[in-house]
Amino acid sequence: MAKQLLECVPNFSEGRRPNVIEAIAEPFRKRKGCSLLDHRADRDHNRLVVSLAGEPGPIQEALLEAARAAISHIDMERHRGGHPRIGAVDVIPFVPLQNMTMEECVELAHNFGGRYCEETGVPVYFYEEAALRPERERLEVIRKGQYEALKAEITRPDRHPDVGEPKLHPTAGATVIGARKFLIAFNVNLGTDDVQVAKEIAKAVRSSSGGLSHVKGIGLALESRGLVQVSMNITDFERNGLYQVLELVRMEAGRCGVPVVETEIYGMVPAAAILDGASRYMQIAGFDASQVIELRLLEMLGDDEA
Amino acid sequence: MAKQLLECVPNFSEGRRPNVIEAIAEPFRKRKGCSLLDHRADRDHNRLVVSLAGEPGPIQEALLEAARAAISHIDMERHRGGHPRIGAVDVIPFVPLQNMTMEECVELAHNFGGRYCEETGVPVYFYEEAALRPERERLEVIRKGQYEALKAEITRPDRHPDVGEPKLHPTAGATVIGARKFLIAFNVNLGTDDVQVAKEIAKAVRSSSGGLSHVKGIGLALESRGLVQVSMNITDFERNGLYQVLELVRMEAGRCGVPVVETEIYGMVPAAAILDGASRYMQIAGFDASQVIELRLLEMLGDDEA
Repeated sequence: MAKQLLECVPNFSEGRRPNVIEAIAEPFRKRKGCSLLDHRADRDHNRLVVSLAGEPGPIQEALLEAARAAISHIDMERHRGGHPRIGAVDVIPFVPLQNMTMEECVELAHNFGGRYCEETGVPVYFYEEAALRPERERLEVIRKGQYEALKAEITRPDRHPDVGEPKLHPTAGATVIGARKFLIAFNVNLGTDDVQVAKEIAKAVRSSSGGLSHVKGIGLALESRGLVQVSMNITDFERNGLYQVLELVRMEAGRCGVPVVETEIYGMVPAAAILDGASRYMQIAGFDASQVIELRLLEMLGDDEA
Repeated sequence: MAKQLLECVPNFSEGRRPNVIEAIAEPFRKRKGCSLLDHRADRDHNRLVVSLAGEPGPIQEALLEAARAAISHIDMERHRGGHPRIGAVDVIPFVPLQNMTMEECVELAHNFGGRYCEETGVPVYFYEEAALRPERERLEVIRKGQYEALKAEITRPDRHPDVGEPKLHPTAGATVIGARKFLIAFNVNLGTDDVQVAKEIAKAVRSSSGGLSHVKGIGLALESRGLVQVSMNITDFERNGLYQVLELVRMEAGRCGVPVVETEIYGMVPAAAILDGASRYMQIAGFDASQVIELRLLEMLGDDEA
């Protein structure tokens, strides 16, 4: 039978201390059957985003080991950063890649969540496709008010965790675990230090306030650089392409006389999203992924294994 | 270590006998680490053009095996065809694709040329980036007068081969081996039926008349569509990126009030050329090919095999 492959993009609340970042990354690097695709620490966000691909078993083992490292080093009572978070291990999404259905990914999230809480004592919320309460499909509902607010509100029935006691871990907070489609983290950095501009643009482009249907976004300051950022997640890049998101942000920024300084793709991106962007801007007619040498090679390697 | 990838486009002097064509193609098809992207036999040229991509080791092994098949089946004394040629295995260019420098490709060409001559007894000329004599950078200089003239002239010092005795192989002639950059066929279609506009723009952008250094181009009419085309070859897409070529054409066309209707990429293109285009237009800072999930998986599949 063909090997199951999934992507996993755990987010940890540490973007500054190199030794802690390394202690979290190491289990992913050394575990066979789990490939560390990418890991990026952001000082301003004070956050580490790890991209993994591999088989369900090894990925879960490596996640538990990395979580133990994160929990032992990170104290949420003292954590500060520009990105919303509720725990040392903040979010763990499982993404089906190959020979795996979304339903299997949801089951994996539920099983892993139970084991994770049992072994670490950190309460768990299930989100997106793995949500057990409809409102918890949305990450922002679970993270409302972040660690600081949840500390008190977790005792309220509507904020009870899905697994574990209604009480945050004293230093590691809580963790959100789920299953979802491939997500592109796309940031647009703007040439102003007025964070209000980024907040207004985020509001204009995100689905929750009437913008593009598959875009989530917040505005935040990149203080060390004197810029602001519209920090977005594109949850369905086939419906809301990078070009569409960028040009909408550019137009809104232009209204305020603010230029797009640069964009960032944070973590991994499927080739299709980049090819689509290139084709749109360069007006390439009838362009096909099989014209890209490396994608042809990957296809052929896959055939060899089947 | 990251996997080295190259393209190779060997040309064989056989375009008519299906059993010989198949005997030459088979080693490329079955060798692991070498992918047969395309092979096209032309009856009139009596020539077979093969497109391969893969790793240096397997490509060389497959080339030697295919060469032995070609040499055993093709008799240059009896070969007739419309395309210039000097040998049964006529030309073998190596093209760096990934994690490989041009210097490494030149070294590969030289090493392979030595081994090829030793194993087959066919003398070798080095061309383009691998040329050992400046005039031999140009293939047409080496192939002057073709097999029939070279048979006598090879004894002249200026026509001595770079590897092997100054004497053609009795049935397989000689082989030209070299290294060159990837060539992208890029067309820009313009919204006018005045072919003079395309001709003038081709002149403005191509190197031969003072334009971009690594662009060749002609202007022609697409009569059935009522458009004109600037038809170009980009011989170094790292120095003259698609975006640069397109925008220069667009600017020149704009001077005549003519819009760019669409562009075309003809045949294969390396992922790097498309990623570069996407990065430029979408202003993606620090974007790296290893962020593209398929390219990372390709690398990982290679690592697993190593």
